[in-house]
Amino acid sequence: MKVDDLLEHISEWLRGTGPNSDIVISSRIRLARNLQDYSFPHWATKKQSEEVLENIIKAKDSLEYLKNSTVFRMAELDGVDKQFLVERHLMSHEHAQKKNSHAVIIDEDEIVSVMVNEEDHLRIQVMQSGFNLPEAWNIINKLDDALSAKFDFAFLPEWGYLTACPTNTGTGMRGSVMLHLPALVMTRQINRVLAAIAKLSFTTRGLYGEGTQATGNFFQISNQVSLGRSEAEILGNITGLIKQIIEQENQAREVLLSHSRTVLEDRVNRSFGILKNAYIISSQETVELLSMLRLGSDLGMIKNVDRSSINHLFISTQPAHLQKLEKKKFSAQERDVKRAEIIRNKLQL
Amino acid sequence: MKVDDLLEHISEWLRGTGPNSDIVISSRIRLARNLQDYSFPHWATKKQSEEVLENIIKAKDSLEYLKNSTVFRMAELDGVDKQFLVERHLMSHEHAQKKNSHAVIIDEDEIVSVMVNEEDHLRIQVMQSGFNLPEAWNIINKLDDALSAKFDFAFLPEWGYLTACPTNTGTGMRGSVMLHLPALVMTRQINRVLAAIAKLSFTTRGLYGEGTQATGNFFQISNQVSLGRSEAEILGNITGLIKQIIEQENQAREVLLSHSRTVLEDRVNRSFGILKNAYIISSQETVELLSMLRLGSDLGMIKNVDRSSINHLFISTQPAHLQKLEKKKFSAQERDVKRAEIIRNKLQL
Repeated sequence: MKVDDLLEHISEWLRGTGPNSDIVISSRIRLARNLQDYSFPHWATKKQSEEVLENIIKAKDSLEYLKNSTVFRMAELDGVDKQFLVERHLMSHEHAQKKNSHAVIIDEDEIVSVMVNEEDHLRIQVMQSGFNLPEAWNIINKLDDALSAKFDFAFLPEWGYLTACPTNTGTGMRGSVMLHLPALVMTRQINRVLAAIAKLSFTTRGLYGEGTQATGNFFQISNQVSLGRSEAEILGNITGLIKQIIEQENQAREVLLSHSRTVLEDRVNRSFGILKNAYIISSQETVELLSMLRLGSDLGMIKNVDRSSINHLFISTQPAHLQKLEKKKFSAQERDVKRAEIIRNKLQL
Repeated sequence: MKVDDLLEHISEWLRGTGPNSDIVISSRIRLARNLQDYSFPHWATKKQSEEVLENIIKAKDSLEYLKNSTVFRMAELDGVDKQFLVERHLMSHEHAQKKNSHAVIIDEDEIVSVMVNEEDHLRIQVMQSGFNLPEAWNIINKLDDALSAKFDFAFLPEWGYLTACPTNTGTGMRGSVMLHLPALVMTRQINRVLAAIAKLSFTTRGLYGEGTQATGNFFQISNQVSLGRSEAEILGNITGLIKQIIEQENQAREVLLSHSRTVLEDRVNRSFGILKNAYIISSQETVELLSMLRLGSDLGMIKNVDRSSINHLFISTQPAHLQKLEKKKFSAQERDVKRAEIIRNKLQL
């Protein structure tokens, strides 16, 4: 598989299916694991890092969930390729900055990806569309068992899995759910909700992970605590919290529909009108307008655009995707023009 | 003729025809005249004002340009009727506040209108679509001659026509031209142009006359000086000035087309997209967006909407027109919703 082959494929996180997929974009679990005979990546020698990578590559084909995966070494990817994989949520922005023995292994369905030699030797990620942490856990747990049978992971009975950063020690697990909360934003309840999330020791991030701002009403909520609780407890806590937020977003949508239907129709349809007619549009504005279009589609206000078309636009209008699709490098200005053209063509009904 | 009959009629100033009608919306000349045997309206007794009105009404049917005119007494019009006539530029906002013997006489083509007992006994106005002061002058001069044959106007050889406010004394004439200058606004040259206009003793006003701000890139330019110059001189000066402004607007449009075509297409088409899709829209935003649509149509960027449809929307979305068309009084909020509906329906292609 080449990076370009992914263009033909819909990312798992954007399939727009699965439980509560009107509000929950995707569910994700990642595990941090380290091989006990090697230094953590930041301190490892070049040789050690290369050995870690070689060991994983050798092992992967015998593992059920990585049989049909491909290894992408950072040193072999150009800037657009790297950004492309970040846009697809297959690796972190930080990892993309690296070279040498840094790599990402991606299965052909884009459900499983493994960053090798990021902050930890292995950062295993499983993605599911919609609100589906149990299935993500089911997959990642089996993969973890299979890996454990092949590798000695750094583990202490009283601490759990050891990681480069102590905040990940213990389960080494992070569960994240990407939510679309336009009604909580429009009814100005979002700050109260985010404050409550922070108090419960969860973190909120934007569409593109750590350090990114929430745009387009998308919020990624993850556990902060990894130590001192079992995986089941952590996932149970997230699940409980997300269910409450879904409930609140649904209530806010009801309130908007019953008290401010025309205001909502106006926002949704203006967004649609701008998307269908603009000749210059930034990726940030695109995400914000598509958020409104998605809400309109979820509420039955927009009838002739389905969620999968909207999701397709979310990803295909991102800077690297856009350049891959057009097979050309563009300046930021040129991208804004090309992006508008792609959106106009896609939405001409 | 009833006020409502005008609904079926396109105002002269919005016909969108005549010389330079891509930039010049309309040309207007008004003359201030007073009957010498009566006090100016502000000081006149009720009886005197009523006599002035009766005299005009008696005379009008024998005058060529007022044969098929109708007298509307302010006392007989409701608030919506009055605002409707103001929106059609047939009388001033100030005149609409009055009752008693205040009236406006309107010919069936809406080319000639005469306010009776406004600031002066007679404020005669002739409107022409496009840049056509000569034809406006031709009509108003003949009408003035015919009126002079029937009435003794207050006139002193050394001063000219006497008027309630000294700024109108002399010719009693004001020539105005309504311009659409989007390119001078977009290229940020408009302030320089307006400063030059002010220096030359012309005034600039907005779409709805004295005290209104320029919205939607519409500017109404009039002579300030009425005394000490002949009518021909005043009209010659305005004509020269307007020709220069037209030239500058055309140059600015060329610059935009050659240097910022995509930016322009973006502005024009976004405006079109919002107009076609909004569910709530104020009259101010409507004028601004229609201004962009008009520019797009003038430049051939918008092909399927003609100028007359755009002009029709300009007037039919004004508050009083909207209520007349819908035969119902609306709150401001209801109007914004109804306005959006009218625009959507008109622009569905």
